[in-house]
Amino acid sequence: MNAEILCVGTELLLGDIVNTNAQFIAKELADLGIFVYYQSVVGDNPKRIKNSFEIAFSRADLVIVTGGLGPTKDDITKEVAAEYFNEKLVLDESSFNKIKEYFESQNRKMVEGNKKQAYFPKDSIILPNDYGTAPGCIIEKDKKILILLPGPPKEMINMFKSYVIPYLNKYQDKVLVSKVLRLCGIGESHMEDVISDIMRNQTNPTIAPYAKQGEVIIRITARANSRKEAESLIIPIKNEIYLRLSEYIYGEGDTSLEAEVAKLLINKKLTIATAESCTGGLIASKLINYPGVSSVFIEGMVTYSNESKMKRLNVKKETLQKYGAVSEQTAIEMAVGIAKEAGTNIGLAVTGIAGPGGGSEEKPVGLVFIGLYINGNVKIKKLNLKGSREKIRNITSIKALDFLRKEIL
Amino acid sequence: MNAEILCVGTELLLGDIVNTNAQFIAKELADLGIFVYYQSVVGDNPKRIKNSFEIAFSRADLVIVTGGLGPTKDDITKEVAAEYFNEKLVLDESSFNKIKEYFESQNRKMVEGNKKQAYFPKDSIILPNDYGTAPGCIIEKDKKILILLPGPPKEMINMFKSYVIPYLNKYQDKVLVSKVLRLCGIGESHMEDVISDIMRNQTNPTIAPYAKQGEVIIRITARANSRKEAESLIIPIKNEIYLRLSEYIYGEGDTSLEAEVAKLLINKKLTIATAESCTGGLIASKLINYPGVSSVFIEGMVTYSNESKMKRLNVKKETLQKYGAVSEQTAIEMAVGIAKEAGTNIGLAVTGIAGPGGGSEEKPVGLVFIGLYINGNVKIKKLNLKGSREKIRNITSIKALDFLRKEIL
Repeated sequence: MNAEILCVGTELLLGDIVNTNAQFIAKELADLGIFVYYQSVVGDNPKRIKNSFEIAFSRADLVIVTGGLGPTKDDITKEVAAEYFNEKLVLDESSFNKIKEYFESQNRKMVEGNKKQAYFPKDSIILPNDYGTAPGCIIEKDKKILILLPGPPKEMINMFKSYVIPYLNKYQDKVLVSKVLRLCGIGESHMEDVISDIMRNQTNPTIAPYAKQGEVIIRITARANSRKEAESLIIPIKNEIYLRLSEYIYGEGDTSLEAEVAKLLINKKLTIATAESCTGGLIASKLINYPGVSSVFIEGMVTYSNESKMKRLNVKKETLQKYGAVSEQTAIEMAVGIAKEAGTNIGLAVTGIAGPGGGSEEKPVGLVFIGLYINGNVKIKKLNLKGSREKIRNITSIKALDFLRKEIL
Repeated sequence: MNAEILCVGTELLLGDIVNTNAQFIAKELADLGIFVYYQSVVGDNPKRIKNSFEIAFSRADLVIVTGGLGPTKDDITKEVAAEYFNEKLVLDESSFNKIKEYFESQNRKMVEGNKKQAYFPKDSIILPNDYGTAPGCIIEKDKKILILLPGPPKEMINMFKSYVIPYLNKYQDKVLVSKVLRLCGIGESHMEDVISDIMRNQTNPTIAPYAKQGEVIIRITARANSRKEAESLIIPIKNEIYLRLSEYIYGEGDTSLEAEVAKLLINKKLTIATAESCTGGLIASKLINYPGVSSVFIEGMVTYSNESKMKRLNVKKETLQKYGAVSEQTAIEMAVGIAKEAGTNIGLAVTGIAGPGGGSEEKPVGLVFIGLYINGNVKIKKLNLKGSREKIRNITSIKALDFLRKEIL
């Protein structure tokens, strides 16, 4: 079964809101194993909505629509659907009573437009709305299935989970299972080079890479008769990718680099303190987003000035004078200094030039040193980054966490 | 001129990411006065991309496409565009050299796929990518305009602002001028209540409010024959909004709360140090994103543990025992402590329960105290926030900066 997603709403066309509905439905359909080849957005205009129905049904058996079920004159999705299928709109008494009750329970006055919300194309399957006044419906005719859902995400998501998924399950003979691998420290194109033969030779599972700032994601998706069968198709591919790229893979599924680093520190009972110059607290802030990190994260310092580096971290004045604040030597002294000061196993320190000013030929914007002290040993990493101040700071924080991850593994 | 937006990417069809690109472009085109009647999403499939080009150009003169300009074999938007317009792909030496330089400067190996990024349909206008390796392009043929942009939002947004807007402006006979007011400390619906009469009675300029996490934005947009005329239409409306909401407005145009606070500190020559518990460096990190803040930002401490609060900030043991780490008293001692330790005019301190665990009936998740020391005076602010750990931490950092802003004004 192929499906399309059509979101109706002028506020989407004007860019007033982000289309999170399309993403939610897309993800749910992928999990159900229903293919989606196109998504569309159209305004609250009868001619254009009808045109969208025609195009969508020329390519798919199932069209899922959000929006246009409200009480105002703008809301016309059901009206256009009735016209498209050449059916009348008929009042559903049960829905009408529920809408009346809803207003009574809220001590609000029902307006005429709300009655319109209880009309549906003849023979529709009605989908109750447990969070608002707009019920949805399913219309099955001429081997086409049209599902109309409300636009507000909360109402739509609840209706989808409660009523649409059970309905669609009966059309599913196959399941789709995805496994996501998260990588850091490798570019998207380099990664693809390494696994291009696997990608080329695979149709089930499929392998899809994509890039985010500072990291790369590989999604392996298998289609099979059962979840177990799909999972067994994924395993050999996943193992092969691990064989080639394990040093870059920091986690699987719904996780983040900072969460994986925090978990590692907790599991290995390694306490940590951070000393940040150009990142200014970004690394500490990321680690602290992981609940429960308090058992290992002792403290952080944002030593932005030279005075602060000397006073808090015992960086030597001569080091700053001879090599400068952005140098390998300073990064090392910062890392050792913070670990000693805080009494931790690990000291992670960063110093660099985030720009846009402050660069020189010898030390350009984007030059960063990461110092890492672990139980008496010191390591250093030098970066040459490009981009805005914000990007340089963010990539630095990612590289620092990844450096730490690799060193404690 | 009518336009359509087409976003290419299997990750969108699978619901892996939200389509923020479509929203950004939709909003920009609305500001330019270019109508958009449809948006679409299609996967990385040549037949279906071509089909989407055909449908879009049957309805619009201008089609703006994002995605599929990367170095991998999946990335085929330019190839399909060349086929659609019956043009060859030709190498652009200048783009090729820039890509080579990009890799050299990053000390990374350029792979074969990256060379592909320097090929464009013949006679294209090339759009430089200042934040990545994928340049975009504009193809004008047969009274159709096709604009191809990279998928990563940061690259796309920068390219759109720097090169696409100036290009599209020549098709506009009217100019559109927008003024953006940024507010903090007021909810969207409350704000709308206060200015609803102005919004209702206005057609030119239009007034569009929208909300982001922790702040609200009002966009005033005027359409006129000249920039000067448009600006003179905006002024009286802007003044009226200031009359009613000035206490909430922290800035205008392309700025941020942290940038405005940093500017105020620099102008007033007030030095600052921060002490953060639940925000874990987020406030310091935001302030440090403003270049030049080094003259006033002396240092920050992430005092996540009680030990650290005592050792670094001289918070009294009795205070922690009697009132707890999350209390008015602790917040005040933290603020005073960091200012004394760092020798600054201002000490800004935050302590709270970000959750998901750690809450109690008396002190629920979301309870936060902000302590502020300014030249001998102490102020305190209590928050009761709702939401995820990440949201509570982010809103706290915004509220703390807004609190500081109002107090130093």
